[in-house]
Amino acid sequence: MKQMLLTVFTLVVVLIFSGLATAQTVDPLPSWREGKVKQSIVEFVSKVTKEGAPEFVPPTERIAVFDNDGTLWAERPMYVQLAFALDRVKALAPRHPEWKDKEPFASLLKDNVKGAMADGMKSVVEIIMATHAGMSTLEFETIVKDWIATARHPATKRPYTEMVYQPMLELLDYLRANGFKTFIVSGGGIEFMRPWSEKVYGVPPEQVIGSSIKVKYEMSEGSPVLVRLPELDFYNDKEGKPVGIHQQIGRRPIAAFGNSDGDLQMLQWTTGGQGSRFALYVHHTDAEREWAYDRDSSIGRLDKGLDEALEKGWTVVDMKQDWKRVYPLAKN
Amino acid sequence: MKQMLLTVFTLVVVLIFSGLATAQTVDPLPSWREGKVKQSIVEFVSKVTKEGAPEFVPPTERIAVFDNDGTLWAERPMYVQLAFALDRVKALAPRHPEWKDKEPFASLLKDNVKGAMADGMKSVVEIIMATHAGMSTLEFETIVKDWIATARHPATKRPYTEMVYQPMLELLDYLRANGFKTFIVSGGGIEFMRPWSEKVYGVPPEQVIGSSIKVKYEMSEGSPVLVRLPELDFYNDKEGKPVGIHQQIGRRPIAAFGNSDGDLQMLQWTTGGQGSRFALYVHHTDAEREWAYDRDSSIGRLDKGLDEALEKGWTVVDMKQDWKRVYPLAKN
Repeated sequence: MKQMLLTVFTLVVVLIFSGLATAQTVDPLPSWREGKVKQSIVEFVSKVTKEGAPEFVPPTERIAVFDNDGTLWAERPMYVQLAFALDRVKALAPRHPEWKDKEPFASLLKDNVKGAMADGMKSVVEIIMATHAGMSTLEFETIVKDWIATARHPATKRPYTEMVYQPMLELLDYLRANGFKTFIVSGGGIEFMRPWSEKVYGVPPEQVIGSSIKVKYEMSEGSPVLVRLPELDFYNDKEGKPVGIHQQIGRRPIAAFGNSDGDLQMLQWTTGGQGSRFALYVHHTDAEREWAYDRDSSIGRLDKGLDEALEKGWTVVDMKQDWKRVYPLAKN
Repeated sequence: MKQMLLTVFTLVVVLIFSGLATAQTVDPLPSWREGKVKQSIVEFVSKVTKEGAPEFVPPTERIAVFDNDGTLWAERPMYVQLAFALDRVKALAPRHPEWKDKEPFASLLKDNVKGAMADGMKSVVEIIMATHAGMSTLEFETIVKDWIATARHPATKRPYTEMVYQPMLELLDYLRANGFKTFIVSGGGIEFMRPWSEKVYGVPPEQVIGSSIKVKYEMSEGSPVLVRLPELDFYNDKEGKPVGIHQQIGRRPIAAFGNSDGDLQMLQWTTGGQGSRFALYVHHTDAEREWAYDRDSSIGRLDKGLDEALEKGWTVVDMKQDWKRVYPLAKN
């Protein structure tokens, strides 16, 4: 009998404390300033997760897609993957004596990035193919892991994986806590992101969509390998983003997050579906804590997308205004 | 006080009964006969899920891949998707008067399937492109859903979705209950499977990998659509299966299930990784309850795969011997 009463007492105590814990509302988005942007996010999540409500969306359909460069991490002064490729050119140069006299490699090896990019997209493709192909998928994964663990951002000297946006990390967590499945949908290379996306963003490899080169299955000394070929397989940008989403997810997302014109079609495709939809653009307005750029930028240009966002009433994040902090661990 | 005691009493009753329920071991694979095949499955799952054990695999890495035709559902007398395509040719014929004199359509419309297939793969591609392309992805999804809801298997007159293998449904559930993420990796069309894979197999669209045709993003009367083009995008068979797995999952599976030589590379790729791996072939040996075929079959040929399975000690299911029942609801 005494033991029974003790059990009851314990139960009552537990119930009271768990009640208190629930009553305290912990802000799931502490790095977002109060205002209409934060409010639009919370309102959308509330209405699609409220069972019985007219706009309720079952968990299986709660697909959220995020661009990466400029949306989840910084893309200035150059795309991180391009910095990786340039470092790879230097690392591989001893094996390629012919690069000394061959563009775009010759300029690159003299640290003349601008000169190397003289032929625009053609230069980029040559650099990518020379550095991203010709090895097994496992070897490439190791190269990426080693690089991302040691490379530093040229301006801040911080690891690239700390150049991610704290408010967006909170947003990813918040959506997942509300039953969303979060995907990355980037113009960047799929195999450049997968080795670290789970650790940094909580997004597993099977939820990463990106550009890809072809791979070939073959036997190497009795063991199966996938060899990376110097041939484009899929370019996951602009009109490619809804295509990539369709091929890899097979459902239309209900929420999409981007920062440039390259994300416009993804936001159109997402909001073009029936029921409640959400689209958000990160607008780079903070020259002090990050970078300020939009309509005239060659990297992450936001021009048509900004017009369409304003016209359609999509959420536009004013980084300077709406974010208390930009990077993790930063004071602001 | 009286109420408190009542609460305690209720709690005690609940605890006793839940304890009893746990103590009773419910067989998760009731349609599998006891024997070395069933034992190999249970042993593999036990060892990779036992925390602290040397062969433990964390849940995120528990990827299991399943072929569809002949592994999860019947592929005789013809692939279900081919039956779908033939029905579509008939449905579309009024809009294509020219088909009356054009092969392979002319023969098909006279129910001469063999004649229509005279040109082999060329005929198949023509039929697929004529029936699977030229509409939006949403329209195609509706066509598939309508067809699968009404079409019947020619031999059994049952809906195709009841021509699935009960032991394999139990296996899918068993793996998921043990923290596995289950994927379909089929040579069949990805968009032919996705509309019903979640309902029938518990596999959501984003976990279906298959062959695909190209799609194009465009605006149609102000709304974004994806239009299906008559052009092959990816053929997910043989060497294509490890490639498709790599592109869409980005991790190497630890368990693979197939029934034909078309699955061999998938089984090689899966078992070629480090740590504990599992490969299983469904061998069609049951002419009475299903069909018996292997080395000489044009559909689902199992020849090289069978040799390699025997050589490497993979699990081979003797359908007649190892399965108590073949189909759901069937007595045997």
